Amino acid sequence: MTKYKVSFSGGTTVEAPAQATLKEVMNNAGINFDFPCGGRGRCGKCKIRIVAGANEPQAEDKRALTEEELAAGVRLACVTRVTNDLEVEFLSDKNISHRILLSSLNRTAKVEPHIIKRYVEVDKASIYDLRTAWQRIKDHLAAQGDQHEATKARVTVLRRIPDVLQNSEHKITAVLYKDEIRGLEPGNTSEKLLGMAFDIGTTTIAGYLMDLYTGKELSVASTLNPQTQFGADVISRITHANQDPNGLKELHRVVTRAVNDLIGEAVKKAGVSRDDVYAVSIVGNTCMHHLFIGVNPRDVALAPYVPVITDPLVIDPADLNLVINPAGKVFVLPNIAGFVGADTVGVLLATGLDQSEEIKLIVDIGTNGEMALGNKDKILACSTAAGPAFEGAQISCGMRGASGAIDHVTFEDEFSFSVIDDVAPLGICGSALLDTVAGLLEMGLIDARGRLKKPEEVTHPLGQKLKDRLVEINGSPAFLLAGEVNSKENRPIYVSQKDIRELQLAKGAIATGIRILMQNYGLEVEDITEVQLAGAFGNYLNPHSACAIGLIPRELEDRITMVGNAAGLGSQLALLSETEYERAATAARNVQFVELGSDPNFTTVFAESMLFPEQEEN
Amino acid sequence: MTKYKVSFSGGTTVEAPAQATLKEVMNNAGINFDFPCGGRGRCGKCKIRIVAGANEPQAEDKRALTEEELAAGVRLACVTRVTNDLEVEFLSDKNISHRILLSSLNRTAKVEPHIIKRYVEVDKASIYDLRTAWQRIKDHLAAQGDQHEATKARVTVLRRIPDVLQNSEHKITAVLYKDEIRGLEPGNTSEKLLGMAFDIGTTTIAGYLMDLYTGKELSVASTLNPQTQFGADVISRITHANQDPNGLKELHRVVTRAVNDLIGEAVKKAGVSRDDVYAVSIVGNTCMHHLFIGVNPRDVALAPYVPVITDPLVIDPADLNLVINPAGKVFVLPNIAGFVGADTVGVLLATGLDQSEEIKLIVDIGTNGEMALGNKDKILACSTAAGPAFEGAQISCGMRGASGAIDHVTFEDEFSFSVIDDVAPLGICGSALLDTVAGLLEMGLIDARGRLKKPEEVTHPLGQKLKDRLVEINGSPAFLLAGEVNSKENRPIYVSQKDIRELQLAKGAIATGIRILMQNYGLEVEDITEVQLAGAFGNYLNPHSACAIGLIPRELEDRITMVGNAAGLGSQLALLSETEYERAATAARNVQFVELGSDPNFTTVFAESMLFPEQEEN
Repeated sequence: MTKYKVSFSGGTTVEAPAQATLKEVMNNAGINFDFPCGGRGRCGKCKIRIVAGANEPQAEDKRALTEEELAAGVRLACVTRVTNDLEVEFLSDKNISHRILLSSLNRTAKVEPHIIKRYVEVDKASIYDLRTAWQRIKDHLAAQGDQHEATKARVTVLRRIPDVLQNSEHKITAVLYKDEIRGLEPGNTSEKLLGMAFDIGTTTIAGYLMDLYTGKELSVASTLNPQTQFGADVISRITHANQDPNGLKELHRVVTRAVNDLIGEAVKKAGVSRDDVYAVSIVGNTCMHHLFIGVNPRDVALAPYVPVITDPLVIDPADLNLVINPAGKVFVLPNIAGFVGADTVGVLLATGLDQSEEIKLIVDIGTNGEMALGNKDKILACSTAAGPAFEGAQISCGMRGASGAIDHVTFEDEFSFSVIDDVAPLGICGSALLDTVAGLLEMGLIDARGRLKKPEEVTHPLGQKLKDRLVEINGSPAFLLAGEVNSKENRPIYVSQKDIRELQLAKGAIATGIRILMQNYGLEVEDITEVQLAGAFGNYLNPHSACAIGLIPRELEDRITMVGNAAGLGSQLALLSETEYERAATAARNVQFVELGSDPNFTTVFAESMLFPEQEEN
Repeated sequence: MTKYKVSFSGGTTVEAPAQATLKEVMNNAGINFDFPCGGRGRCGKCKIRIVAGANEPQAEDKRALTEEELAAGVRLACVTRVTNDLEVEFLSDKNISHRILLSSLNRTAKVEPHIIKRYVEVDKASIYDLRTAWQRIKDHLAAQGDQHEATKARVTVLRRIPDVLQNSEHKITAVLYKDEIRGLEPGNTSEKLLGMAFDIGTTTIAGYLMDLYTGKELSVASTLNPQTQFGADVISRITHANQDPNGLKELHRVVTRAVNDLIGEAVKKAGVSRDDVYAVSIVGNTCMHHLFIGVNPRDVALAPYVPVITDPLVIDPADLNLVINPAGKVFVLPNIAGFVGADTVGVLLATGLDQSEEIKLIVDIGTNGEMALGNKDKILACSTAAGPAFEGAQISCGMRGASGAIDHVTFEDEFSFSVIDDVAPLGICGSALLDTVAGLLEMGLIDARGRLKKPEEVTHPLGQKLKDRLVEINGSPAFLLAGEVNSKENRPIYVSQKDIRELQLAKGAIATGIRILMQNYGLEVEDITEVQLAGAFGNYLNPHSACAIGLIPRELEDRITMVGNAAGLGSQLALLSETEYERAATAARNVQFVELGSDPNFTTVFAESMLFPEQEEN
């Protein structure tokens, strides 16, 4: 098929088949251009200009356009067909919108920010036009035909009217959120529109600075959640919030301050102005959510573990002491239940589970493990306290996945491991713990109940070479990864019997969740077409190890994909697109929460899930 | 006709004719009870309980009520007839509303405040009811069937949910404004609902503390507008706002502080809590309006004199630094034009001009005179700078209408005057200036052009006795009211030639406005059925004097009524009733503003109106 080159102002150039309409070309190129009449040549709104390669106008062009326009190469994009190379100019950026690509999920979304900007040149009053300045601004905006008519403004915005008009010769940009004019700025600032998407984890806070005009990610900043000083897990923070008279305020203050600091860091990295940040989106588990908005999460820790609020929230930055443009808004994604929070909603959004035809299982592994199973027709979700083992905490030589952490261990051919940043090892992180235990199982050094065998009990042929690594440290059995001479701080690095027990508890909790979800749904393993592992840990683990220890059913090993920080990606989507944010609310409402503890099979399933799978070679 | 005593819970007791229905009795007693089906015995909603004097139930009662209810004396109010003395108990305060009577206008209004309170007993969560606390609160409110469904709340309110539920055993009162939950209070506080109506005049600020539950006025407080330190009139304040870098902020701050102080004074007088004040209403001229909300009124002083905003505004108290309950709102009435402000809208509301069948002329006389002419079909309004003469300012011996002011002067039989508080006179106020000039005209001591005659020129027989009061003071002709021995401060009290000129300008301005409104409307004097004089000055002037000097056409003398501070009454109405507030917005939009200066006849009419009417006896 003959193809021609079509280039658009703004930089996009694509190859297009002969006879394709520009509407089709733009669609395929991910350029979102508005065709109000659906592209039927009727409304005359999809005007573009053909700078080079213009053909004779069509009947529809002639009906909709003036002689001057036609002569200048202006055409309707819906009826213009590609018959040669074309150079296309957009006449206004009003009806063009952008798409973003979330690469790790291979997913696109239309950029349609919550907060929008509109440039207007406001008429001056005269004895023939006695409309007030406020009325004239509203009339101009209404004439632009936006979806929401701007009808209101806070008095703090009204106060700006006289000066902003005078200082800009009546050329101003209005900042709009739905039917409210949130800000008035002199001149045309419509391309200055930034936002920051946050994922507030129990341990880590990550923020992504996004250009809400183009959809591009400008910079990333992250930090340890400063609430960890009041406790590593959500329960200890809830305790602090309720036992210390200032606890709740303190927890709220440190997290909002951290968010403020990250915004500062991100705008500095990107070389942009903090005052151009108009939107912030937030995901986090229910406890992080409540503490961020300043609501006491007490009830989340008490049966029946009901949050105070699950609805999506749109909050004034001042009510959270967030320092962004005061015309902006903070968009907090909805929660599902006490232990299935807005972070899981972010994961659903990013993975598109609520729109999937196929049945998928999504597991977000962190201190808590959240699981969702289903497709567009029905989704079940649950949460389980996996404990900190996966994150390398409360493990003898455990550490977070930072420089010096052993992150992967292999027992194939030869025992070996890799260290982050390729330095002398300091400790092990969660993925290495998983690899180690999986290998020990496969080599017959651990039995199905999780007991480390004594050297003399090892019978598996492959395990023979490892027997001398079975040592005793502080009076307990352990498996030695690196002796003190090889480690950075001259301490032996090992996995103890106790560490194995911690991992058993953690993997047992996740596996129990998966099994109970499947039982409740009435699904078998083969019904699940894909397993998506989310979360920092989920992104690094070895799928084979995960199946070997029984974290994920072995049958699904080759259906596992890693989706990275899907909660953070969901936050970005909700920030960039009002439609996606609204989808989140619907998804959150429709997900059915399964309370594992009240399932009649819970105890049995959990006891079974604590065991390791029988190894084939054992 | 036989009458019986009917007493209602809440304290109202009335005499009612035999066979009247309780619906009719309540209506006449000013008790607003809801009859959803119009009182036809169909809906069964108008349940009350007859504590004493109950008769046999009617067919409608039997259809709508249970056996237990009937036995307990419960009846439908619409079908219950008075056949003996009755004691009636309201079963809930939900369908009873109050009426207020604005005595000076003989006008009633239904009490239906903007901010409402709803008492709810919130279910507790259980494993069978996993709704969030926020959802349960919303569901309970929705079940009460209010007009607006509460769907949103600021995060500052959401933060209160856990504690307010815990501290009240889940019995709480929600404070609502339209679809927003603005506050949550422990226990049943639904009867604690106060508001304060303000009239912010250029010179004086008056505030009325109202019970929004009963409609009663609890106390009144007033003060000099502290902005007078920056200028006596609106133009000098606008100048200050724009010439001093902090001028605008300063003017805004002093007026909001004065409003805060008046709220404090009023709640103290009434012995109530400031925290129970949930609503504030504001009227004032356009400049006072803009300064109160903090908007630069610069454009009001520049042709074409267009305000920045005329729309009615609902503002958070915090945005104005007003110290009332943070769940409350401030309701600012709309303006009509640069010099016809929210105070005139208040006057329209209080006088009901927008609903009048008859053509009426309303004149609000102050430093500026605002006039409105018309009826429910069409209203024209204008404004004119009358200057301070009517308020006793810039007059040789002028003073405000306070203790020691000569307030009325009579030339009938004998020359005499009255003094406020019956003390030795200190000076004269506006109404006395008007009486004096009117008398001098009628006695032939002033000619139609306003010139004080010399004693030898006086020919009118009645004027002969007054000739020796025609004196010369500081080289200018004057009319002596009291010699220095009779005055409190041993200074002569007189009206000078210059004072007469000031009054001529003032009355000429008002009379011009009235004539141009009539011309624009196409009305003759006889078409006007009533003249209502509003404003502090309007309430004290002698209608005969006003007509004698030509302030009001002489033909209308016996159609003049005084309506007191109608702007303040309008503010009260807008505070007490959402319907009245919405009426204000409609009225403000529909009034046609007449710009006197651009009327082609202005100069001629003004020159003629400066003259005094020819006196019949002259």
